[in-house]
Amino acid sequence: MAEIKDLLNADTVIRPDGRAVDELRPVKITRHFTDAPEGSVLIECGNTRVMCTATFAPGVPRWRKDSGLGWVTAEYAMLPRATSERTPRESVKGKVGGRTQEISRLVGRCLRGVVDMKALGENQVQLDCDVLQADGGTRTASVTGAYVAMVDALNWAERHKHIRSAARVIKNQISAVSVGVIDGTPRLDLPYVEDSQAMTDMNVAMTGSGEFIEIQGTAEHRPFTREELNALLDLATKGNRELQAAQKAALAED
Amino acid sequence: MAEIKDLLNADTVIRPDGRAVDELRPVKITRHFTDAPEGSVLIECGNTRVMCTATFAPGVPRWRKDSGLGWVTAEYAMLPRATSERTPRESVKGKVGGRTQEISRLVGRCLRGVVDMKALGENQVQLDCDVLQADGGTRTASVTGAYVAMVDALNWAERHKHIRSAARVIKNQISAVSVGVIDGTPRLDLPYVEDSQAMTDMNVAMTGSGEFIEIQGTAEHRPFTREELNALLDLATKGNRELQAAQKAALAED
Amino acid sequence: MAEIKDLLNADTVIRPDGRAVDELRPVKITRHFTDAPEGSVLIECGNTRVMCTATFAPGVPRWRKDSGLGWVTAEYAMLPRATSERTPRESVKGKVGGRTQEISRLVGRCLRGVVDMKALGENQVQLDCDVLQADGGTRTASVTGAYVAMVDALNWAERHKHIRSAARVIKNQISAVSVGVIDGTPRLDLPYVEDSQAMTDMNVAMTGSGEFIEIQGTAEHRPFTREELNALLDLATKGNRELQAAQKAALAED
Amino acid sequence: MAEIKDLLNADTVIRPDGRAVDELRPVKITRHFTDAPEGSVLIECGNTRVMCTATFAPGVPRWRKDSGLGWVTAEYAMLPRATSERTPRESVKGKVGGRTQEISRLVGRCLRGVVDMKALGENQVQLDCDVLQADGGTRTASVTGAYVAMVDALNWAERHKHIRSAARVIKNQISAVSVGVIDGTPRLDLPYVEDSQAMTDMNVAMTGSGEFIEIQGTAEHRPFTREELNALLDLATKGNRELQAAQKAALAED
Amino acid sequence: MAEIKDLLNADTVIRPDGRAVDELRPVKITRHFTDAPEGSVLIECGNTRVMCTATFAPGVPRWRKDSGLGWVTAEYAMLPRATSERTPRESVKGKVGGRTQEISRLVGRCLRGVVDMKALGENQVQLDCDVLQADGGTRTASVTGAYVAMVDALNWAERHKHIRSAARVIKNQISAVSVGVIDGTPRLDLPYVEDSQAMTDMNVAMTGSGEFIEIQGTAEHRPFTREELNALLDLATKGNRELQAAQKAALAED
Amino acid sequence: MAEIKDLLNADTVIRPDGRAVDELRPVKITRHFTDAPEGSVLIECGNTRVMCTATFAPGVPRWRKDSGLGWVTAEYAMLPRATSERTPRESVKGKVGGRTQEISRLVGRCLRGVVDMKALGENQVQLDCDVLQADGGTRTASVTGAYVAMVDALNWAERHKHIRSAARVIKNQISAVSVGVIDGTPRLDLPYVEDSQAMTDMNVAMTGSGEFIEIQGTAEHRPFTREELNALLDLATKGNRELQAAQKAALAED
Repeated sequence: MAEIKDLLNADTVIRPDGRAVDELRPVKITRHFTDAPEGSVLIECGNTRVMCTATFAPGVPRWRKDSGLGWVTAEYAMLPRATSERTPRESVKGKVGGRTQEISRLVGRCLRGVVDMKALGENQVQLDCDVLQADGGTRTASVTGAYVAMVDALNWAERHKHIRSAARVIKNQISAVSVGVIDGTPRLDLPYVEDSQAMTDMNVAMTGSGEFIEIQGTAEHRPFTREELNALLDLATKGNRELQAAQKAALAED
Repeated sequence: MAEIKDLLNADTVIRPDGRAVDELRPVKITRHFTDAPEGSVLIECGNTRVMCTATFAPGVPRWRKDSGLGWVTAEYAMLPRATSERTPRESVKGKVGGRTQEISRLVGRCLRGVVDMKALGENQVQLDCDVLQADGGTRTASVTGAYVAMVDALNWAERHKHIRSAARVIKNQISAVSVGVIDGTPRLDLPYVEDSQAMTDMNVAMTGSGEFIEIQGTAEHRPFTREELNALLDLATKGNRELQAAQKAALAED
Repeated sequence: MAEIKDLLNADTVIRPDGRAVDELRPVKITRHFTDAPEGSVLIECGNTRVMCTATFAPGVPRWRKDSGLGWVTAEYAMLPRATSERTPRESVKGKVGGRTQEISRLVGRCLRGVVDMKALGENQVQLDCDVLQADGGTRTASVTGAYVAMVDALNWAERHKHIRSAARVIKNQISAVSVGVIDGTPRLDLPYVEDSQAMTDMNVAMTGSGEFIEIQGTAEHRPFTREELNALLDLATKGNRELQAAQKAALAED
Repeated sequence: MAEIKDLLNADTVIRPDGRAVDELRPVKITRHFTDAPEGSVLIECGNTRVMCTATFAPGVPRWRKDSGLGWVTAEYAMLPRATSERTPRESVKGKVGGRTQEISRLVGRCLRGVVDMKALGENQVQLDCDVLQADGGTRTASVTGAYVAMVDALNWAERHKHIRSAARVIKNQISAVSVGVIDGTPRLDLPYVEDSQAMTDMNVAMTGSGEFIEIQGTAEHRPFTREELNALLDLATKGNRELQAAQKAALAED
Repeated sequence: MAEIKDLLNADTVIRPDGRAVDELRPVKITRHFTDAPEGSVLIECGNTRVMCTATFAPGVPRWRKDSGLGWVTAEYAMLPRATSERTPRESVKGKVGGRTQEISRLVGRCLRGVVDMKALGENQVQLDCDVLQADGGTRTASVTGAYVAMVDALNWAERHKHIRSAARVIKNQISAVSVGVIDGTPRLDLPYVEDSQAMTDMNVAMTGSGEFIEIQGTAEHRPFTREELNALLDLATKGNRELQAAQKAALAED
Repeated sequence: MAEIKDLLNADTVIRPDGRAVDELRPVKITRHFTDAPEGSVLIECGNTRVMCTATFAPGVPRWRKDSGLGWVTAEYAMLPRATSERTPRESVKGKVGGRTQEISRLVGRCLRGVVDMKALGENQVQLDCDVLQADGGTRTASVTGAYVAMVDALNWAERHKHIRSAARVIKNQISAVSVGVIDGTPRLDLPYVEDSQAMTDMNVAMTGSGEFIEIQGTAEHRPFTREELNALLDLATKGNRELQAAQKAALAED
């Protein structure tokens, strides 16, 4: 990956937190964060902290009954003071905002992308990602943390004989990371201060075998070229490999 | 307090977690739990864990404008997997349930009960109590934790010159605890397993000077006598004194 | 009860409506107020007028099916011009407010507290308390009136062979009354003008055998002492006894 | 009106309550039914009972500001046990049903139809029609009762110097009645038992000078001819004249 | 119909679009406007354009199950820029407005009025009327267009053996038109510019055999006399006959 | 672009509608589709038909006041029978679904991506994209059609002196197209029948200068490789160039 650094003139770029342009924030994954859920993970990516729980439950939604297939779904939310200004609760407003729904759907698709629904059988995994503290990259941290919580929940389900083999259900590993272009240079894993300046912003979810499940690039403030896209995807590939190592390390403990 | 134990035949009562009938669960109050809020507290009462944040903001709701008085309000909520079965999100259901509103109102009244609105001036403190893990007593833990978060937020406001003196705003200390009658014996600080068996259930919020702000006793399953009420209030008084000592100890650190 | 008066220096207290501090407002309970419901009561406590209907229906909510047990539930609401200023309709606002839900839940718990769910069998009693005119104490009048409506509905159910015996279903009598401290003196049955001045406000629901089902004391504006609490409970006990006599008298007519 | 009877072979028609086909149910209009509203009327048409309140308030909705014109609006609702089966509350369902909105709009248009908005000035009259007991014709009873409540509220406003002259604001008298065709014969003022059988159903609101403000005829079950329409309008004219006499008599009392 | 013109002094009335007082706007009915629905019609009445689709589906709502009878229902809506000022979407506001519900109900009643529910069997026809461009008379255009869409859907159902005979289901033809009094003269088929000036406004739905299904006359701004009513009904009769000829012509094509 | 065809073995792929893998469906853009909006376009991409209107209005949302900057926003919706099965209306359900919000946000971002907010000044363009018929690619057709509607609205605003120069407001052209991998071969512009089979699905919005505003690739059913991504982007680039030619041709007419 040395080439990327060269390309990006990383030596001249000073990031607010002193990182190199292709460097992740410190990642910390705490399993068994709470007791009740089948899988419960606190993931910290720098100052971003997301609590990810995985609920394993027999049965599937009505529209999927008698298909022999399972289902995986996700909900994302922010606590009111995850942000520097208080965000009103969506429960009190009486509706879920567009951003929340968009992210919930993204997390669900990513996790479904690595699950063998037939091996899961008519069971459901519900992922809940609640942001305790937001400092950029909450949606990608949610994907990365939810994967670990899901593995724990599926192992629980195997131990309790709800499924035959967690390993067969999980087809692949999944993680996600954000990348963006700030002041003309692509950077990996943007904290809020960079995210809010980014002209181009991209979230990339990748499997353990290096393929894409989701690419969401948006450039409301300045369109990006094919070359920039390639540089961003290189950074995202590097970041996801490191996140996947962190996931493996966390799952190896017990 | 030895009398209470005698009265209650405490020696013969075996509680699920081995506590004496007049014994609190271990209390842990962590300040500065997250960075963004003016006050951020994690309170743990046994396995119950509530994140309490206090947001200080200049200005008051419209109906209170130009009164010279401040306002304190609270919102309570449970994360979906705080409980052993997943509870659907109220944001997704599109409305806040009766229990949630009832508790939010209770927490707000308790905290307002110890604030001098004139000394606060036209500023608002918003308390958010989010239950990460529920094992009984979440509403009383919310009151107890929110007090500490509010003190931190008011001290922040004093340091930032939004108010003249936090000490003048806070008229009194406040904490709350649950008590109940199980199998005919009054007990202090019920975990879920006892709470669900309790015939009589009471939440008592008390000031540092030993007076009541809120008493909510409910006995849907078996009415209680004046004598039982008195025993419960004795237990609650003891429990609140110990909680107030824990609040003071937490606030003394820095 | 002469002692209470002495304690309270009743001679020196002049209430807005000329009552003694331990005196109820005139109570009038009209049964068969409307024709359609199985029980239909208009209760008037001074100027407070609440229409309480009881609907008896076979069957229970889904979560209670096949339990062999019945269910009792309540809904409270105010007509828009029950109050001196018009209150917007909650149907038009699209959500039920916190106060409404809190009172609905209170009324439900009180009535369930005197019903033998096994004797009721898988039947439901739905209580609807609609305030035609509000002058303080609407929630306690709702409890007191709903009891009479429920008795009528259960007698109807017995006559129509839906239950074997109304007497076996009704384990106890229930009424409720408000008490409060104004200008330092505890008083019974507060009209709006006193309620809005009360520093401490308490609603007490009591059974015919003198035990408590609900005690809700709140003192947002000035905490109350154990002594004041005792004086308030004495007043509430006296008031509930008189209300229960009025209930009995109403039910004796035909 | 003898001709109508002849035409309708009234001698051979036996109505469930023994009335002649062109006979109104007994009408009773009670003013000052409750104390708080500026106008408060209980109207009883047979077993139908509607509480109509009129709220006079200075000011108009935003879209009408600075027009020099007033506004009149209405809301209609049914209490849950106005009907023989309990109807769920629209506040609890979280939305106002189509029937309720349709009737609210009808009542508003009728009352606006007799008000001189310029003479009213920038003031608003809000009419609330709450059905305590429903036995057919609740929307027409609402119009008829709301008129009396509005007159009381405008007289109140004159006495309190909010408007110069109630008489100038009220351009005309208004009442409404239902008519319908059952078993081929037109009938006046249908109770529920007839209403539910009616093939054609029409509500007619008429001014004191005999002109129409609203005609709503609906014949989902059997279309009606021009001749039937004429017979129905004759009946409605007779009914409205009698209702207007009852309104006048009620307003003459004091 | 020459008499009407005379009566109305049609020669002296100049309508904004140059039409005679008893003249319809040009009507154009396009069948098979879109491909997916069983019936899909674009109806244009002058500048008013409504897309009417009819969905045929086996089965009926729960409350009608096992009755052997079918059901017909309708929903009306306006696209945001059907009007000269943008109207906010009701989906975004989270509730359907009173006007929308009122019109949806009207369209449903009109179409049900010409359907033999027994011949339809336990099948449902859902009509959707979406206004692409609004220039007065959108509700009556919806009725007229929905009839043609329903006929197409029922013919489809006959071809696909869901029903035995479309002809037996359709008891009668139905169309609707608006009439109103402007400047003292009754006029047929009001465009927006006339509608907004109309003192009296009436919508009349008529069957192919010349009988009424719905008459909705409203005169918030000036009551109307029996004579005016008769003139309006004459105009509506003429207009509906012409609309029914246009429906027949459209259905004759293929 | 011959290379892509080779790479994709286009000769052996038979698409349901006979197109080559890199061939767009026929595009038809009709301007002035309705009269009221400042811009009104019907875009047809094969059987997909979307009505796109652009509303120009002075003023901006409150949060953007006094910034000197304009705002562009979008709402997307489907008519109930745009699809082969009827989709319930979101207005009737009382909430906007996640998919609808996600697409509305996407369209808004794309259009904002080519607008100079400073040149627009404190004015707002509201885009409404209503799908009359859905056959795949409705969100990309919405972007492509909305651009043309927006240009018309901005030209209108220039003619009416609301802005100085439409050309200065519009920084770039924008269009969007879908691409996907079916049976292992990348294809351009998927109709519903292909879309529902696609393992990988990507929407690409591109400017007139060939840069990206949005890339949304999702591969819930089979992850995609970097090589596939490149092939898809090549196809999308070709498609967008052709769509932009169609936009130019439509805007050249008058």
